Amino acid sequence: MKEITVQLDERSYPIFIGQGLLQQAGLLKPYISGQKVCIVSNQTVADLYLDRLQSQLTDYQVSIVLIEDGEQYKNMDSFNRVVDHLLEQNVDRKSTVIALGGGVIGDLAGYAAASCLRGINFIQIPTTLLAQVDSSVGGKTGVNHSQGKNLIGAFYQPSCVVADIDSLFSLSQREFSAGMAEVIKYGLISDADFFDWLEANTDSIKSLDKQKLAHIVARSCEIKADVVSQDEKESGLRAILNYGHTFGHAIEAAVGYQGWLHGEAISAGMVMASNLSAAMGALTEQNLDRIKNLFQAFALPIHPPASMSAAQMKALMLHDKKTIDAQVRLILLRAIGDAYVSADYSPQLLDKIITEALS
Amino acid sequence: MKEITVQLDERSYPIFIGQGLLQQAGLLKPYISGQKVCIVSNQTVADLYLDRLQSQLTDYQVSIVLIEDGEQYKNMDSFNRVVDHLLEQNVDRKSTVIALGGGVIGDLAGYAAASCLRGINFIQIPTTLLAQVDSSVGGKTGVNHSQGKNLIGAFYQPSCVVADIDSLFSLSQREFSAGMAEVIKYGLISDADFFDWLEANTDSIKSLDKQKLAHIVARSCEIKADVVSQDEKESGLRAILNYGHTFGHAIEAAVGYQGWLHGEAISAGMVMASNLSAAMGALTEQNLDRIKNLFQAFALPIHPPASMSAAQMKALMLHDKKTIDAQVRLILLRAIGDAYVSADYSPQLLDKIITEALS
Repeated sequence: MKEITVQLDERSYPIFIGQGLLQQAGLLKPYISGQKVCIVSNQTVADLYLDRLQSQLTDYQVSIVLIEDGEQYKNMDSFNRVVDHLLEQNVDRKSTVIALGGGVIGDLAGYAAASCLRGINFIQIPTTLLAQVDSSVGGKTGVNHSQGKNLIGAFYQPSCVVADIDSLFSLSQREFSAGMAEVIKYGLISDADFFDWLEANTDSIKSLDKQKLAHIVARSCEIKADVVSQDEKESGLRAILNYGHTFGHAIEAAVGYQGWLHGEAISAGMVMASNLSAAMGALTEQNLDRIKNLFQAFALPIHPPASMSAAQMKALMLHDKKTIDAQVRLILLRAIGDAYVSADYSPQLLDKIITEALS
Repeated sequence: MKEITVQLDERSYPIFIGQGLLQQAGLLKPYISGQKVCIVSNQTVADLYLDRLQSQLTDYQVSIVLIEDGEQYKNMDSFNRVVDHLLEQNVDRKSTVIALGGGVIGDLAGYAAASCLRGINFIQIPTTLLAQVDSSVGGKTGVNHSQGKNLIGAFYQPSCVVADIDSLFSLSQREFSAGMAEVIKYGLISDADFFDWLEANTDSIKSLDKQKLAHIVARSCEIKADVVSQDEKESGLRAILNYGHTFGHAIEAAVGYQGWLHGEAISAGMVMASNLSAAMGALTEQNLDRIKNLFQAFALPIHPPASMSAAQMKALMLHDKKTIDAQVRLILLRAIGDAYVSADYSPQLLDKIITEALS
């Protein structure tokens, strides 16, 4: 088992990465404060992992609330359902919410834990690759709104994160690939060596080599933990974790959060951001090709949906949370492994990239 | 104008107290970051003060959302209405929410500001005595739930608080008295001299002497700011601000948040907590009488509603946010001006106090 710490002074917390962690007796105990534990999950995940998790929770009063599976259920209605459940259980400030599932469950349960009694204890047990390498770490919680993704929520850190590699074996190939989009992102924004390593190990990663899986989860969490420790509330640096996301979120909104997985949308989005970086002279044609090839090697899309128009992309990008006074800020690359936040790009060049991608 | 600072490191903020502040040009400018300002209020308050406030906001894109007047509208439906409005206005992270009104508006608008884009800029302009001396200061925001008061919310500090004494002249006598319950509370929990001063100045306060009003708001805010600075998230000390509130919240829940104002409910609640303190030997009979007399001098109730049963009181008290593992913690007095948090009282004595109050 590997342990990585997210350094946030008195709110620092560990990420445990390894095999067999779900049923590892005593692992969660130091992170559960009161008697009541509420597990938030969905039916699919519960069928697979609830028994294992409950085997280490026999000392507690455990209740379970299941949310429908899918991004379209990450909304205020589901939030109300979780909060209603928690309050009906008479939770107190020492009670614990455990999110068992992917990013939807983690974001939703985290926002409910943050809001219930103005904040109760929270544990993340991500079961998808995407959630293990991204959404479960760093304290961003929330739900979607008809105006855009994650527009309602809170910064709320868990008391620990448990990433059990075993749960990655039940993912569909498509879900696994969607998670790989975020893994590749970490190479692109801050670790050229990790990008090289991913290129060199594509086949063994795709065949779910356990050592390799543990490495990609750990390295991704290390990079994310490092960025979050420096800028928890995204006043600057943290925005680089959103590489490709301004385009990607627009894609997800355009398709109504259906049909495209988050990882697929940001994959196409990262290619657009890379195109813009290349057009600004920061990436060679060869490196741009390497980026596209690595996404394609994991069967990830490199173009936005054909149904989307350039005008729609531009309008939806204005809703991005990084937008300030109608100025869209983007994450761009100086090189593979070196990202920066910028509002200082040519709007004409951005227009050109969007038009080329959507014609 | 008096300025009091709530000390919270980089999130410290001023409370401005004085006359004519609503229309004081330039007062808010340093605390507004972006172009967009959204005022949350209700029709009653807007009719009285919106023009004055808008006169100092001519440089901004101002939008207004009005919520129905009353505690029963401090709920998730109203929260959704405010958030929908903010997102439809395409607010960004530098946009500002201004709460113009009493505690309902401040708590609701604050929770919406905390949740929208995971937190946008927020300013409190409390227009009732209760909001000026209590709810606008300290960052507790939230809404009610059918299970109890303020069960959903966030700790979220404003960037400034503006308490314009002029707005106290439009309050009904009943609303003013309800605010006085919180003012008397500050004397009871931490300032015996202030309690004495309130006893000596009852008549001039009731006749709304401006100097006296400014003093009671300022002294109350000083005490609250001092407590909040020491314990923002209520891990200990801050709970003393809840003197009488465990009983009071149970009363409010029992009457369905209607018919009893918050200040009235906690007035009866503080008398119950004082009765318990006296029964434990901490208050003399004479001091207990002084407490009851001061509440009665401001026409505040000293008994819970006759419609309530002892069993109902006990059941509802379990929902208090200070309850941990079914152990109700109470705020008790060592003397007038000296409160403490305790789970170490005799349950039999508490039973006796509740039964006496409700028979």
